[in-house]
Amino acid sequence: MNPKHIILDTDPGIDDALAILLALASPEVVLDGISAVHGNASAEQVTTNALSILELANASHIPVYQGCDLPLVKESLLSPETHGNSGLGYANLSAPATKPQIKHGSDYLIEQIMSHPGEITLVAIGPLTNVAIAIRKEPRIVQNVKEVFVMGGAIKHQGNTTPLAEYNTFVDPHSAHIVFHSGMPIILTPLDVTYECIFLKEDLNRLLKIDSPITKFISDSTRFYMEFHDEYQKIDGCVINDPMTLALTYMPEICDYQDLYVDVDISTGVGLGNTFADFYNYEKKKPNMKVAMGVRPRMFMELFLERMEKLAKTIS
Amino acid sequence: MNPKHIILDTDPGIDDALAILLALASPEVVLDGISAVHGNASAEQVTTNALSILELANASHIPVYQGCDLPLVKESLLSPETHGNSGLGYANLSAPATKPQIKHGSDYLIEQIMSHPGEITLVAIGPLTNVAIAIRKEPRIVQNVKEVFVMGGAIKHQGNTTPLAEYNTFVDPHSAHIVFHSGMPIILTPLDVTYECIFLKEDLNRLLKIDSPITKFISDSTRFYMEFHDEYQKIDGCVINDPMTLALTYMPEICDYQDLYVDVDISTGVGLGNTFADFYNYEKKKPNMKVAMGVRPRMFMELFLERMEKLAKTIS
Amino acid sequence: MNPKHIILDTDPGIDDALAILLALASPEVVLDGISAVHGNASAEQVTTNALSILELANASHIPVYQGCDLPLVKESLLSPETHGNSGLGYANLSAPATKPQIKHGSDYLIEQIMSHPGEITLVAIGPLTNVAIAIRKEPRIVQNVKEVFVMGGAIKHQGNTTPLAEYNTFVDPHSAHIVFHSGMPIILTPLDVTYECIFLKEDLNRLLKIDSPITKFISDSTRFYMEFHDEYQKIDGCVINDPMTLALTYMPEICDYQDLYVDVDISTGVGLGNTFADFYNYEKKKPNMKVAMGVRPRMFMELFLERMEKLAKTIS
Amino acid sequence: MNPKHIILDTDPGIDDALAILLALASPEVVLDGISAVHGNASAEQVTTNALSILELANASHIPVYQGCDLPLVKESLLSPETHGNSGLGYANLSAPATKPQIKHGSDYLIEQIMSHPGEITLVAIGPLTNVAIAIRKEPRIVQNVKEVFVMGGAIKHQGNTTPLAEYNTFVDPHSAHIVFHSGMPIILTPLDVTYECIFLKEDLNRLLKIDSPITKFISDSTRFYMEFHDEYQKIDGCVINDPMTLALTYMPEICDYQDLYVDVDISTGVGLGNTFADFYNYEKKKPNMKVAMGVRPRMFMELFLERMEKLAKTIS
Repeated sequence: MNPKHIILDTDPGIDDALAILLALASPEVVLDGISAVHGNASAEQVTTNALSILELANASHIPVYQGCDLPLVKESLLSPETHGNSGLGYANLSAPATKPQIKHGSDYLIEQIMSHPGEITLVAIGPLTNVAIAIRKEPRIVQNVKEVFVMGGAIKHQGNTTPLAEYNTFVDPHSAHIVFHSGMPIILTPLDVTYECIFLKEDLNRLLKIDSPITKFISDSTRFYMEFHDEYQKIDGCVINDPMTLALTYMPEICDYQDLYVDVDISTGVGLGNTFADFYNYEKKKPNMKVAMGVRPRMFMELFLERMEKLAKTIS
Repeated sequence: MNPKHIILDTDPGIDDALAILLALASPEVVLDGISAVHGNASAEQVTTNALSILELANASHIPVYQGCDLPLVKESLLSPETHGNSGLGYANLSAPATKPQIKHGSDYLIEQIMSHPGEITLVAIGPLTNVAIAIRKEPRIVQNVKEVFVMGGAIKHQGNTTPLAEYNTFVDPHSAHIVFHSGMPIILTPLDVTYECIFLKEDLNRLLKIDSPITKFISDSTRFYMEFHDEYQKIDGCVINDPMTLALTYMPEICDYQDLYVDVDISTGVGLGNTFADFYNYEKKKPNMKVAMGVRPRMFMELFLERMEKLAKTIS
Repeated sequence: MNPKHIILDTDPGIDDALAILLALASPEVVLDGISAVHGNASAEQVTTNALSILELANASHIPVYQGCDLPLVKESLLSPETHGNSGLGYANLSAPATKPQIKHGSDYLIEQIMSHPGEITLVAIGPLTNVAIAIRKEPRIVQNVKEVFVMGGAIKHQGNTTPLAEYNTFVDPHSAHIVFHSGMPIILTPLDVTYECIFLKEDLNRLLKIDSPITKFISDSTRFYMEFHDEYQKIDGCVINDPMTLALTYMPEICDYQDLYVDVDISTGVGLGNTFADFYNYEKKKPNMKVAMGVRPRMFMELFLERMEKLAKTIS
Repeated sequence: MNPKHIILDTDPGIDDALAILLALASPEVVLDGISAVHGNASAEQVTTNALSILELANASHIPVYQGCDLPLVKESLLSPETHGNSGLGYANLSAPATKPQIKHGSDYLIEQIMSHPGEITLVAIGPLTNVAIAIRKEPRIVQNVKEVFVMGGAIKHQGNTTPLAEYNTFVDPHSAHIVFHSGMPIILTPLDVTYECIFLKEDLNRLLKIDSPITKFISDSTRFYMEFHDEYQKIDGCVINDPMTLALTYMPEICDYQDLYVDVDISTGVGLGNTFADFYNYEKKKPNMKVAMGVRPRMFMELFLERMEKLAKTIS
């Protein structure tokens, strides 16, 4: 089978960086390019981070496009307390030699999807601003994208930013609303499954047996993240939401799915950014996405560790 | 230990009727009176129903007070599709010989709580309109009520009326907001635990071995309910939310509890009536209630069946 | 013609006090009683103020009933910056010798309206909490009240508390929503007309030619108010909303009216408490009130000054 | 003085068409191009309309760029009852020979503003979707645009679409929110002034003395509009909002202005799309626009008629 052509729309961000590395380490997919979006840090910072990570993994041939620097309607909300000031925890990558492309991230999405109809798998693991703008500028991408994997939302699970809202959705609920109701074929990875997948200290120790810039980066970045999770959520290890979303593009059996009608609350008030499913179909609406609601955590983690080990051995 | 003095604020309603019967069948509590409130049917109808049920159980000495006929702010929402036109499913009780008291239900709550400080256990198993009005008229009941058991809300569980909202809370979210933020000592029984407690057809068959107006009533009323649950929620049997709430007044070990800050969404929009907890304490607010989040369903059901059997044997 | 029987639901408050005095000075009406409500100060304080004002005017035979101390749903919002800590500006009335009645303000409204069907004119010049609670407890007062004059709202006019909301409506928008949609025969006096009626320093000087506790009180209380208006709204003098509402009960020709459908925004957000009319009938709803939209300011002011002069001469 | 370089962002639309004609008839401005946006009709239809109108006026050298076909977040709301199915009332223009440019309307805005810093006057007379998308894609246009004239909103005036909301703002309140809070130098023309400017039947008759495709078009298009205004708003004639906005670019003295902080309500509820000013500065925010609040209607109308007469004489 031919590898899937993937675009990552992302705001690296610690676990975003791990998703980039996993994409590079997976022969099942080809990473065509990256569109960067505000979120864990500013658009400029996360673009720089994406370039640095690609260089770290000897993959600076992959183009990076800077996208939106602000949420669509809400005020900006960056997250230095979760990802550190640079967005990559304690990792201290050297400034990238390569530069971002000139085209805007959302235009890159439009161009690639429209010129390869039915072939592009979009993996959106940050706030959905780039994707939403692309849909409003060129509505036909909805029919021409192969599939869209989205990391975001918390269906039955509590939020990780407000009592009800997950971070990506809370940062830009209006963009999530646009994407969710666009008609795109979405596969959602909400906190309900990602919070079952803990990257433990022993997982990190296994990786650290290999001496490589890759394992050093994973260690430096996730250490910050682990401290955060420990302080706020009493989790011993850290949740790495984004690489699991990437893994589902070629190993769907990690999760179990339900076809659901999912909405995002864009009312002003305590529910802002809440994502919820209509399990009993009160609204009589058709499902608008597949939602991963069950997960085999160690199946994913084993995959992730193996691929990181393999990648680490090639980089020194 | 002396029995607890209980006031039931209720909208019978099939499972409300079962809660009244369980109160009468429980020597651990004394049912001082009933305040009736709109919900499953109109205030007038549920008042009549309460009187009929008391007569059925030879308990017409217990006073019934009619309360509010409309939600505080929202438009009225009765539920004939869940509880039948009379509110009691297929049960056809004779019109009551006794009459309701003249005093308004909310004034009855105020009077009893203020004249027996620290002694009244309020069990509120319908929309919270009567309780909210009582609090606004006489704020001191907050300090003088012993405890308030509330059946309502859906914390992690989906709603049973909208994707997010449980029926009692959706019917009058503003009253729930008043009560939840009043400072009263609340023990909440949300759908998270009540939906684990299914009254099965075999449970009904066990009761029907006793020939009594009580068992006939339970059969006639729950049959309607079971058909509803089968059609909408694919549950084989029916959920009886309210008697479990009553049971917790003297058998708290049926459930496990968490101290939580719980809020109700009163924004206009898709989240209206959503009840949610701040598990990670993002809002830095103190817990405002104990919430039953775990349950031993058969411990409750066994209690319920035994008590109904005992009551049935005394009524013929 | 027989004088109208009036109940004042009020939160004195400087201009509320003036409305009480105007009622006492008007042979066209009989002030049956006062129900006090939180607003310009706490329920306890405004009850005390009402008693003091009645004593000042030798009218302590008129009963005062304390009502609600909190808005229905929103958090409390008192207004010491507008009315001073006591609610009466720089006026320093002696503590009243008389006491409030025991019955709650909202129950007083119910009792009077139900025992004198079609005869009671309710003049509500504070937040509408008492009236809303009364409607929910005894819906039949809607048909049995003769008419309800409400001071509140800002239809085309900007708000005096937020850009969109008038004070009484902003303090308790949910109660206003209940009253406006209750079906009661309402005559509304919004800021659109009251802000045309400025009590000028020369008006005050005219009154001060009479040496009386009444004129001294008017001077001491309005002086505070004038300073407030000067600082915030650049008005030379002060707006006295409430006495004009009282005057309309017997001199309707002061204003011009439109039959309008008026709603109150109870959404969470910038529009909270906004009152607005559907002039073009987009909503296809029937008018729910008469709204004073035009006014002859000096006709009112002349009436007010004459009546205050007459009253002042009888009190020394 | 050099003529101003103008881009019209527009959804023609009857009065949009008149604004295009007025721009062509005004030597004080140069119409550089048109970006079309959904609103009075679909993006495709209004693009066609813009091309047809340019051809009608021998101006098909001016480029037209199709923009967004959907509001940013809300569902689409076209207005065939106000502007007819084609968007141009009873006018029946021939299909245009010219074609729209390939670039998207919002990208045209970005390109022109960024390549002519400080020189472009943007006149936005439809829903603000194109402008909002442009701001989010290239935030620097905010500093580089010379000025932005916006037709939209209703400050003290009632709405023309809901009781509170003007059409352009109601169709896409989220885009208006983005533009209003962007920092762009905005001059707003709300209904408060445009509804004072009635294009009367006698004005039309004056134009019809000249036999020209231009006057025929004005007659055929406004006839539909006049019937609409007569039916809904009892106005004898029709309001032509958009050409007045255009006129203000070079004849500001038609209006009087206030520097105000203006916000748009994007809450879910009755206030959606309401535009309002903080006249008393409760919010302590700096003004974000100049708002035309007073107007000399016949000064504008005389200008409009003269310019249309002159244009009509050149086209036959």
